[in-house]
Amino acid sequence: MPDSSAPNTPAVILVEPQLGANIGMAARAMLNCGLSDLRIVAPRDGWPNTEARDAAVGASRDIVERAALHDTTAGAVADLTRVYATTGRGREMTHRVLTPRAAGPEMRREAAAGKKIGVLFGGERAGLSNEDVSLADTIVQAPLNPEFKSLNLGHAVLMIAYEWLAAEDATDGETLDLGTTHVATKAELENFMRHLVEGLDQGNYFRAIEMRPIVVRNLRNLFQRAQATEQELRTMHGVVEALKRAGRDTAKPPKEN
Amino acid sequence: MPDSSAPNTPAVILVEPQLGANIGMAARAMLNCGLSDLRIVAPRDGWPNTEARDAAVGASRDIVERAALHDTTAGAVADLTRVYATTGRGREMTHRVLTPRAAGPEMRREAAAGKKIGVLFGGERAGLSNEDVSLADTIVQAPLNPEFKSLNLGHAVLMIAYEWLAAEDATDGETLDLGTTHVATKAELENFMRHLVEGLDQGNYFRAIEMRPIVVRNLRNLFQRAQATEQELRTMHGVVEALKRAGRDTAKPPKEN
Repeated sequence: MPDSSAPNTPAVILVEPQLGANIGMAARAMLNCGLSDLRIVAPRDGWPNTEARDAAVGASRDIVERAALHDTTAGAVADLTRVYATTGRGREMTHRVLTPRAAGPEMRREAAAGKKIGVLFGGERAGLSNEDVSLADTIVQAPLNPEFKSLNLGHAVLMIAYEWLAAEDATDGETLDLGTTHVATKAELENFMRHLVEGLDQGNYFRAIEMRPIVVRNLRNLFQRAQATEQELRTMHGVVEALKRAGRDTAKPPKEN
Repeated sequence: MPDSSAPNTPAVILVEPQLGANIGMAARAMLNCGLSDLRIVAPRDGWPNTEARDAAVGASRDIVERAALHDTTAGAVADLTRVYATTGRGREMTHRVLTPRAAGPEMRREAAAGKKIGVLFGGERAGLSNEDVSLADTIVQAPLNPEFKSLNLGHAVLMIAYEWLAAEDATDGETLDLGTTHVATKAELENFMRHLVEGLDQGNYFRAIEMRPIVVRNLRNLFQRAQATEQELRTMHGVVEALKRAGRDTAKPPKEN
């Protein structure tokens, strides 16, 4: 019985899968991406399948255990309103063909509109039959290396499930993981630069005085480009002092010169 | 020796992988997406590994056989200018974090600019150590189901390799696979509609004559929305004639009435 309170997510339908390990890996990929409705049509090694359960890890074992077994592909798609067929090769049929990247947002729109969606995946040896493909509204074909197009079954499920997930993902493409600190304010950066340059002046670093502003600017750029944090600048203050101490302590006592 | 005529593609670096099967599956995923530079750091079961070779299929076995073995992660990244670390969990370090979707285009830009790129993947049990992560410029973290984030190693490699591939894929998101036919011209569609409606008139289908234009329009919409091909319309011409024949042949001879 479908749970009407559950989100409307696509069913994954494995048609005549051969290896239990691939069924388990498909379940794992599904749960990684928030899917849970697994349907299996005429698995070669019967059902239940211990290898499938073993290959799925942790909570994805529940997906294997709750998978619906069907005798025919037609039976497995009977309650669906929108069916996609994944295939790596062209068919002698007129069909809409989507890339996985285009299929993700489309599936999201359809699910939001209340359609019940399923995606067909063929068995390891020969993929989907033309008969199976003809039960689908649309083909999904990944633009892979033309000389090596055949995806592992679990990988194919991951790719589609991942596109479903990514189509509504709102994570920033780029973030800075800061832990408990913050990127240094400009005042904190200037404070450090002052400390550093003071030490450099003491150490007689700027032999050509006209280069001083350029070198200072380049050093500032380095810490700025790194988005140095307040914590890192505190560390660097300590580094400056430690290097000065190192110079002092290893300096030969003038007496022995 | 790097082949300077080969395209500049990212290296995949598996750090202390445990299962040979996962190494083989990673190689398969790499070749699916056009990658070939596999490096392996201190694999648990030694090297070469028969299971790795067996799990890779076809040409991806070459990738396993040519994989470079390293004792340390630092050694495996020594020739690279840009290193990404894949991880599912936050680290106590300040780091740039990209989604795989954002990492794909960035890796393409960097490769185009001549940078040599590598992506680190941790072992099955614990992922990358903080030590390994600190060798990387940037973290890549996939926004997965927060309650089930751990990806299989081969799946993780596929996800990154696929984003590399997809970032420069120029395939139309949606196409119509037509084989040798074409979507019917409007003249071909009108010709079929004339034939169909003529048959419907003969069959006395339009009992309410004021509904005729509306029903004809709805039928036209159906074939138009399907983007019916010239070949399909030829088939439909035959269907119309066959149905008319069926009516004629099963009609009781008037004599016997």
